[in-house]
Amino acid sequence: MTLTVWTYDWVPGGAKGPRGFVRDLRLRWALEEAGLPYSVRSTPFDERGPEHFERQPFGQVPFLTDGDITIFESGACLLHLAGKSDALMPGDAAGQAETLQWVVAALNSIEMVTVPWWFLSLSGDRENGLAGWVRKRLGHLEDVLRKRDWLAASRFTVADLLMADVLRVPALRDFAASPVLDAYIDRACDREPFRKAVADQIAHFEAADANRQAP
Amino acid sequence: MTLTVWTYDWVPGGAKGPRGFVRDLRLRWALEEAGLPYSVRSTPFDERGPEHFERQPFGQVPFLTDGDITIFESGACLLHLAGKSDALMPGDAAGQAETLQWVVAALNSIEMVTVPWWFLSLSGDRENGLAGWVRKRLGHLEDVLRKRDWLAASRFTVADLLMADVLRVPALRDFAASPVLDAYIDRACDREPFRKAVADQIAHFEAADANRQAP
Repeated sequence: MTLTVWTYDWVPGGAKGPRGFVRDLRLRWALEEAGLPYSVRSTPFDERGPEHFERQPFGQVPFLTDGDITIFESGACLLHLAGKSDALMPGDAAGQAETLQWVVAALNSIEMVTVPWWFLSLSGDRENGLAGWVRKRLGHLEDVLRKRDWLAASRFTVADLLMADVLRVPALRDFAASPVLDAYIDRACDREPFRKAVADQIAHFEAADANRQAP
Repeated sequence: MTLTVWTYDWVPGGAKGPRGFVRDLRLRWALEEAGLPYSVRSTPFDERGPEHFERQPFGQVPFLTDGDITIFESGACLLHLAGKSDALMPGDAAGQAETLQWVVAALNSIEMVTVPWWFLSLSGDRENGLAGWVRKRLGHLEDVLRKRDWLAASRFTVADLLMADVLRVPALRDFAASPVLDAYIDRACDREPFRKAVADQIAHFEAADANRQAP
């Protein structure tokens, strides 16, 4: 089993750049949690050619290769990896169903509202047409997390990894300030595998700066 | 194995009502494709109490019970059901990964843009702040579907069921008119299991009209 995480060769740095938030982070974090060996390879950020679209039809990253299999969508990659390690998802049917439902909830009930809200907010209007919907969805999530530390199966799973990564976007945390959600994000991001994944991603992009600045 | 699809007891009818589009349809359609026996039960549309939020934390439908397991999020329910039937997802690892990635793409690359676009368009502005993003994402999907009939594994899978249901929303079809996507939606929705699922859902809500109109 050879696992390779594919990400961009470079992304902009600085306060507005996405370093530390590019979604290969989700895969790095999961692989660190699982203790599975993996490598990281790059695809060009500037020029996304047919080869990139062949592997990621929307021109994004990450994608994962697992031997002969290539799989895109960070959520799908996480579920694929979860099948390889009990550290990411329990092995029993009930635990699997609970983890699966919260992975999809992070993607389709929370991120489906928060990412378009964030996109609209880039033009300066945080109180845009999706603001009320964001508050409502996060309120329901708060109701759940007020009663327990982790979303599924009474333990940290890949659903928490994904949900925490969806919620930790600075503009969103600032907009929807919530002690319950803040504590949850901090609980997840205080894990060593998360810290290593972030540091590794930032180092990956920093290493590329030198090449780009060369004459 | 006792499979029960839970949906509302009633939703509004008429041209603006959601009959035929409530997401229990995805589960009904999948179960019909798989030939698995199931029943349908109702939870109140008007009064969504603690019992509803216990099973669906965002106050929505559908959710699925499978013996002792309750699972929410239509995408998660579909993946759960896909594990029970080759009619929904191939049994080999490569086919499973391909199906999984397109299920998540429907949820997180397409619906994450189209549903918030639709929500904003309800106030009358189809050319809202998400319109360009919708066109871009659907353009990438067209590039894929120009080359093949189905998304994954060279055959109809649960990924097509979900993607077609995401795309067939009338306001979206009208906005993003595309011969390639239209042909794809028609190909999926011309299947007998889809027609039965829609007819059954509409009959379920129509049967409730009489009770509500009683004095």
